[in-house]
Amino acid sequence: LGSGTLDDVRRMLSDMPAADVAYLLESSPPKHRHVLRKMLDDELAGEVINELSEDLQADFLGRMDAEEVAQITEGLDDDDVADILQQLPDRITNEVLDSMNQQDRARLEQVMQHADDTAGGLMNTDTITIRADLTLDVVLRYLRRHEEIPEMTDNLIVVTRNDRYIGLLPLRTLLVADPAVSVREMMITDQEPIPATLPDDNVARLFERNDWVSAPVVDDNGKLLGRITIDDVVDVIREDADHSLMSMAGLDEDEDTFAPIRRTAPRRAMWLGINLVTAFIAASFINLFQGTIEKVVALAVLMPIVASMGGIAGTQTLTVLVRGMALGQVTATNQGWLINREFAIGLLNGVTWAGVVAIAASVWFEDWTLGLVIACAMVINLVTAGLTGAALPLLLRRMNIDPALAGGVVLTTVTDVVGFVSFLGLATVFYG
Amino acid sequence: LGSGTLDDVRRMLSDMPAADVAYLLESSPPKHRHVLRKMLDDELAGEVINELSEDLQADFLGRMDAEEVAQITEGLDDDDVADILQQLPDRITNEVLDSMNQQDRARLEQVMQHADDTAGGLMNTDTITIRADLTLDVVLRYLRRHEEIPEMTDNLIVVTRNDRYIGLLPLRTLLVADPAVSVREMMITDQEPIPATLPDDNVARLFERNDWVSAPVVDDNGKLLGRITIDDVVDVIREDADHSLMSMAGLDEDEDTFAPIRRTAPRRAMWLGINLVTAFIAASFINLFQGTIEKVVALAVLMPIVASMGGIAGTQTLTVLVRGMALGQVTATNQGWLINREFAIGLLNGVTWAGVVAIAASVWFEDWTLGLVIACAMVINLVTAGLTGAALPLLLRRMNIDPALAGGVVLTTVTDVVGFVSFLGLATVFYG
Repeated sequence: LGSGTLDDVRRMLSDMPAADVAYLLESSPPKHRHVLRKMLDDELAGEVINELSEDLQADFLGRMDAEEVAQITEGLDDDDVADILQQLPDRITNEVLDSMNQQDRARLEQVMQHADDTAGGLMNTDTITIRADLTLDVVLRYLRRHEEIPEMTDNLIVVTRNDRYIGLLPLRTLLVADPAVSVREMMITDQEPIPATLPDDNVARLFERNDWVSAPVVDDNGKLLGRITIDDVVDVIREDADHSLMSMAGLDEDEDTFAPIRRTAPRRAMWLGINLVTAFIAASFINLFQGTIEKVVALAVLMPIVASMGGIAGTQTLTVLVRGMALGQVTATNQGWLINREFAIGLLNGVTWAGVVAIAASVWFEDWTLGLVIACAMVINLVTAGLTGAALPLLLRRMNIDPALAGGVVLTTVTDVVGFVSFLGLATVFYG
Repeated sequence: LGSGTLDDVRRMLSDMPAADVAYLLESSPPKHRHVLRKMLDDELAGEVINELSEDLQADFLGRMDAEEVAQITEGLDDDDVADILQQLPDRITNEVLDSMNQQDRARLEQVMQHADDTAGGLMNTDTITIRADLTLDVVLRYLRRHEEIPEMTDNLIVVTRNDRYIGLLPLRTLLVADPAVSVREMMITDQEPIPATLPDDNVARLFERNDWVSAPVVDDNGKLLGRITIDDVVDVIREDADHSLMSMAGLDEDEDTFAPIRRTAPRRAMWLGINLVTAFIAASFINLFQGTIEKVVALAVLMPIVASMGGIAGTQTLTVLVRGMALGQVTATNQGWLINREFAIGLLNGVTWAGVVAIAASVWFEDWTLGLVIACAMVINLVTAGLTGAALPLLLRRMNIDPALAGGVVLTTVTDVVGFVSFLGLATVFYG
């Protein structure tokens, strides 16, 4: 990008698909981004902003006035415009809505009623609906009157006179079936419509399990509101999976890889602060055993080993549980089994490595008591780690706290404290 | 499941979609699984096994002979059968292939030539191809001669007489365009076909960026081999995202949430063993400072704080990099910028929390020297953490080592060692 004139770059950008431009922006340091952004014309800019992560969207949108927003969002799908408007201050959102015609505005307000993370917030209103009593031949002629069929249309939606959902007519059926038969005879009725209030991760699971390309969305009375398409579901899947990974490191899943320092540093500082408090809590437990450490300094050398092994074992269990919960596999009926299993694994691996550690420590410091103490502490801490790693996320979920975010902090505090106290406590007993 | 007779359960299962049965199996402890499995008829069993995670697939397949495998895979897509066969011992795979007819076998061998994790391994051969010189009317009549059009068909693929890919004709164009015009006039030619050797994560990124439902796959000479559909791509996206999360805890992304203890315990034990070695390395550095700790026991109390803060800060940086690399955002041109940013964030947050820690430690132990020492060590370790967290994954990638798997172990070793050495080393200097 350094070489070439600005005009060359502008021409290159206008030839690229919006998603590639968005990718280029995501992969560029901040100062390049704004130069690139200014080179996009309104239509491309709208599509590009739509493809960006929320963090970057907010950054670009924050610099626009209502008129600019109205211009760039003109060509976008309803759900995408709704997402963008929901990020803006109310004043600007209202100005943008005021500048639209009655029909566009009504449709958008419909989508914006629903929370961002529900089926209603994911849906588009670009459905093609038909009646069940038509023949396929009539449907084919009806379609020919359209300028174009919306992208990702794999099914026509069959509704009653009152717009209630009855079934789906796949295009691939329409193309091979006898044109003389009625829609009613050929339609699929076993695909349940999605309620507008369903959380988006459940929507994603339905799409994954049933291999849908699109699915109809209805209100409480079964009235058709719109449809959800796989491209938006893929984004939900990506975000959900990112959420677990990023949260476990105390990061936001919308975190932009190339966010500037002044935005990233304070966010991360908060997480470090929380961990600093828990580290001081763990330290205060070590403090109780100053006398013992003074007598046997080898304890200070070995104590981080016990704590760290507990942290590792606990994190493994926690990760398995967090993923299982994100995939919807962990239920009330199987959670007891899981806790038992993690207890057994903790005990088994605790005993295994306790033996190794005991020998290593005894040989290193020529002190068999030390080996015995560290072995016992290791078993205690690995069992604690297994139990905490399994029970904690279940408990946090019941308290409506995100296990991926809070789990790691609480877990390592527990394994640190139990590790230090069991090791130094046993040492105090043995060395009197 | 406890209540009700086995017949009731069997009837219930045969009414459920395969994906729901698979989900039920995934969420059941091992001993329930095999009871449930035995109740499925062959056709359903094939679809169900196809939906299971690799770990569970292997478990079920391991108990079958060639004849059973041949029966259950009869109704599946080529790419799914190929995946299943590739997991079996060669002897059984050959027996299954021998039992097929010539045509099925040739098609399967075609798919099996390609590695599982490439475009070729993801593709199906159920394409509908047409010639460019036909009119749309002829195409419509040609389609009517099909019993059915394969699922997820959004485009017909336009090829030359020699089966070379030229373009795509969307069904949604076919349904609205003038039947008298030719395929050539209406086809899309700007969608590049996917080379069979493209790695599957790149395929996923192409689908995500371009919102494709299906895409054609070609060989080196541009000859059409098959097509990839979004349902298989969604699985790749899910697996890739899982990979980062699970690897960072030393777990396999195919790890089954409900795997039995005898399978899970040894896998996790290995990871604990690796971490035990690194914990001993860190401990051996503490050991160098026994004399200083003996003089000032407060050092033993505070040293885990320095190490743990470094670990947290480094993990945050590492996670951002691992995710950025998985999304393909980190390139040779921007990695320098990233390392600089992480250095700056480490310095900024190091100084911020060093101040807080210095005051807390000084007040706690009524010793200002201790405050100064821990403050300096904290800054050193947080800067090291930022630099290591950013540079290490880039280095590991260049060495073809998975940064998500190896990164965490190496990182915490570095932050532990640097944390202990800087803190205890400075203390040795200050306390003489």
